[in-house]
Amino acid sequence: MANRKKLKSEIARIKPDEIRVHGLDLSRDILGRVNLGDMAFLEIKKRLPTLQESVVFNAIAVALVEHGVSANALAARLTYTGAPEAIQAAVAAGLLGIGGGMATGMVSEERKTGSMENAACMLQELLPEPKAHVDLDALAHRVVQDYAKTRVIPGLGHHYHVPIDPRTPRLFEIARENGFYGPYVKLMQLIAKRAEETYREVLPINAPGAIAAIASELGVPWQIVRGITVVARAIGLVGHILEEMQYPMSRELQVRAQEESGTYPRGS
Amino acid sequence: MANRKKLKSEIARIKPDEIRVHGLDLSRDILGRVNLGDMAFLEIKKRLPTLQESVVFNAIAVALVEHGVSANALAARLTYTGAPEAIQAAVAAGLLGIGGGMATGMVSEERKTGSMENAACMLQELLPEPKAHVDLDALAHRVVQDYAKTRVIPGLGHHYHVPIDPRTPRLFEIARENGFYGPYVKLMQLIAKRAEETYREVLPINAPGAIAAIASELGVPWQIVRGITVVARAIGLVGHILEEMQYPMSRELQVRAQEESGTYPRGS
Amino acid sequence: MANRKKLKSEIARIKPDEIRVHGLDLSRDILGRVNLGDMAFLEIKKRLPTLQESVVFNAIAVALVEHGVSANALAARLTYTGAPEAIQAAVAAGLLGIGGGMATGMVSEERKTGSMENAACMLQELLPEPKAHVDLDALAHRVVQDYAKTRVIPGLGHHYHVPIDPRTPRLFEIARENGFYGPYVKLMQLIAKRAEETYREVLPINAPGAIAAIASELGVPWQIVRGITVVARAIGLVGHILEEMQYPMSRELQVRAQEESGTYPRGS
Amino acid sequence: MANRKKLKSEIARIKPDEIRVHGLDLSRDILGRVNLGDMAFLEIKKRLPTLQESVVFNAIAVALVEHGVSANALAARLTYTGAPEAIQAAVAAGLLGIGGGMATGMVSEERKTGSMENAACMLQELLPEPKAHVDLDALAHRVVQDYAKTRVIPGLGHHYHVPIDPRTPRLFEIARENGFYGPYVKLMQLIAKRAEETYREVLPINAPGAIAAIASELGVPWQIVRGITVVARAIGLVGHILEEMQYPMSRELQVRAQEESGTYPRGS
Repeated sequence: MANRKKLKSEIARIKPDEIRVHGLDLSRDILGRVNLGDMAFLEIKKRLPTLQESVVFNAIAVALVEHGVSANALAARLTYTGAPEAIQAAVAAGLLGIGGGMATGMVSEERKTGSMENAACMLQELLPEPKAHVDLDALAHRVVQDYAKTRVIPGLGHHYHVPIDPRTPRLFEIARENGFYGPYVKLMQLIAKRAEETYREVLPINAPGAIAAIASELGVPWQIVRGITVVARAIGLVGHILEEMQYPMSRELQVRAQEESGTYPRGS
Repeated sequence: MANRKKLKSEIARIKPDEIRVHGLDLSRDILGRVNLGDMAFLEIKKRLPTLQESVVFNAIAVALVEHGVSANALAARLTYTGAPEAIQAAVAAGLLGIGGGMATGMVSEERKTGSMENAACMLQELLPEPKAHVDLDALAHRVVQDYAKTRVIPGLGHHYHVPIDPRTPRLFEIARENGFYGPYVKLMQLIAKRAEETYREVLPINAPGAIAAIASELGVPWQIVRGITVVARAIGLVGHILEEMQYPMSRELQVRAQEESGTYPRGS
Repeated sequence: MANRKKLKSEIARIKPDEIRVHGLDLSRDILGRVNLGDMAFLEIKKRLPTLQESVVFNAIAVALVEHGVSANALAARLTYTGAPEAIQAAVAAGLLGIGGGMATGMVSEERKTGSMENAACMLQELLPEPKAHVDLDALAHRVVQDYAKTRVIPGLGHHYHVPIDPRTPRLFEIARENGFYGPYVKLMQLIAKRAEETYREVLPINAPGAIAAIASELGVPWQIVRGITVVARAIGLVGHILEEMQYPMSRELQVRAQEESGTYPRGS
Repeated sequence: MANRKKLKSEIARIKPDEIRVHGLDLSRDILGRVNLGDMAFLEIKKRLPTLQESVVFNAIAVALVEHGVSANALAARLTYTGAPEAIQAAVAAGLLGIGGGMATGMVSEERKTGSMENAACMLQELLPEPKAHVDLDALAHRVVQDYAKTRVIPGLGHHYHVPIDPRTPRLFEIARENGFYGPYVKLMQLIAKRAEETYREVLPINAPGAIAAIASELGVPWQIVRGITVVARAIGLVGHILEEMQYPMSRELQVRAQEESGTYPRGS
């Protein structure tokens, strides 16, 4: 095995009588002391959160858990009905649609909706060093110019939550109360303000935009921001699979789609 | 690495100027000479099929490709809309529902429908050595007794294709024409006959039952029989994803489900 | 749409200015007030946890997050490398292996390991009504008799964490401190005691067994217990995908497997 | 349901006594007459192939089935071991890595490898109307100029199959023999010629590049080209799962990775 790269992982160390995660003893330091959101923070930041970070991180993750009977929930429910013995597969099927198409919105006015990952990428590329002294308004101005052709700035606007996404002010309030109302949040707000002025449209920050800004404040790399959505939606999907066990809808959905689409011609 | 088990795979050997699959040179022996079903046969049986085996194996695989707007197709379409940049994920989502729940039928009369894997398992456990001289009718009688309580014998009956699954006689005809109308097919037919007599119901062999019997004739281990369905459905799912690109239905489905279920209250 | 079953979901109600989950206003009642584990509790129990329930539920979920470089983590890492633009697919791939095979243990002595879902099913079927006055020891005795042939009682023994799984005493301590040291925990412990006496082996309760008992105390139906594992592992998988971005191991793993298994003959 | 878009699917029509796929009677017109590759052609092109199209389409699909112990095969094998009762999930896990990262090559010299989908997109965007009278060499020249900065033209070069990918000449030969050696193949070859001259490197057409050109000749839209890979790899993954049942490697892989990476410290 000369010239071989060594396999390396620093996440866990497991002995017969001890399990350590990022250096912490699972039984002594973690269990009973931290919540599930803190554990996700530990996986991403490789240290436990402070009390303030815990509140803020849990809030942005919690905000992403539940979206009602979404396309993801339907995919999970349909899969559960086909393979009820494998609910991991139903959750996985529901997660698989968390891609770029999510950014295009649920219903129609796709133009106004942007995605969390893209917003976080935009913010972190604009401001790689949050403590740097930079002119945030100049950055905002530049963004609005750069996006002028498409006018689709990630994190702005919503086709349904009009005039304002009810999660956004609350999330910013939580960030402010806990000391995370910093340059990324301000930059996002300046971008929204400049965009509204320039495009002469109502373009408030949507929840993905707010979460992207707050995640950036917490130092979450944009490359893993989608991971927060994935984890949160997995929780929501478990709720939908449980409801599907109790009041199924997937078979009905399928039969209707088969009849209406022509697969099973009516009357046959 | 003392005491280590060596990793071993006999499927492929790849050199800069040559790719071999189960000993055959891909460019010289395979490409242009064999079809996709033969290649699946090669993966499962580790040799190419005879001409007769090729016709029979392709027929059972082809029979499983398309089921119209099924739950699997809907899951794939919903996932495609969420992640159009990752069609492998849409196919995967559609495949994930190919589990035990498929056996319970599409619509309602779940009692009569059985699954292909269970039927193949039943046949191969009853008759582990197809060339053995055994009393097939006695085996059929035993099965009907064993299942008397539930009366759900895998491979028999259909809630929709009444009185007969149109695929079954054609598949048996193809098996007969190619020399694969052997003991597993006969056993399946005897089981159907005995079951109809004993339960006094119309219980013809459904397509999964016919395919299970024919796959057993071809020497496909029941443990991998579900793999044929998975491969075949992957092909059908690609067709549904392509149609979703051209005439989408998943967004409409989602909006209707959201409104009717109460997620988005009407009028709000 | 005569004769049609109405689609129904009671999880979420979404209006332009308000999002409700199980009746609670997301912005007002949930964000900033509850953590991610509480949100999972809300999805499963349809109400928020008490403070005690929160501590206990978060502890069992947190205990399941991280298992180091497991098969699931490897599947996620390998998938990430193939599709880095779709980390939802990498998480999904990692989750797909959370099936019955997990129960067979990581390394070798499969005989002693059981699974969480099976343990929860066993406990809840033995004791469907936790407040009933029943002879728990008699139930334990019955279980040990029923499993005497295989001696594999779910939730007992561990091939690696010998003599005791370090998570188990801590989880039971947390349950006790918060008032959830009830009949399911006692039944699990009596089963372990009886099994050790009868089979004359060291068979302590493993972490899945402890979690199964505590989840039963919390009233989590065994049918959805696997969902807790799925959610928890999704969090751990995000950590592994992030580490794979930083110190990749999957390409090295693949090259070694290809060479050793013979796919790429050495020297070619 | 006023203002609702009607759900529409033209793929299948299913009646109790008849199953039609794109207008063809499954039992009468398809079973026993067409092979699995033809069925995939039918799903994509909505008509059966001619004999020549059948040979060519089957060849490109067959060429993609098997790649030995690849990252995808490992993900499928690891998943199978965790969930042996759900082989659909193991296949799905293996498929999930068929993303943009595949384009970066198996081992190291990522610079030279491109992807099939990108190559097909490049060719079809350059030449939207294959029968048009255009100067192919001028198009090739333009491509080489456009890509001059990165020098990574999709479909050219291979890190391992040096000096030439053994599949490419055979695939082109099959295309020529069957009348599909048309403008897309010629354009791909001119691009390779121009690139070699301009970049002064050996940059032959790799198998994905050849398949992309031939798929374009067959009129397969580039948007669904990845679907051919997905279907083909599903077949190969079934072979690897079957081999994993017979000679498992995934547990050994996992144990080694756990030990070497530090998860399970040696000696503990």
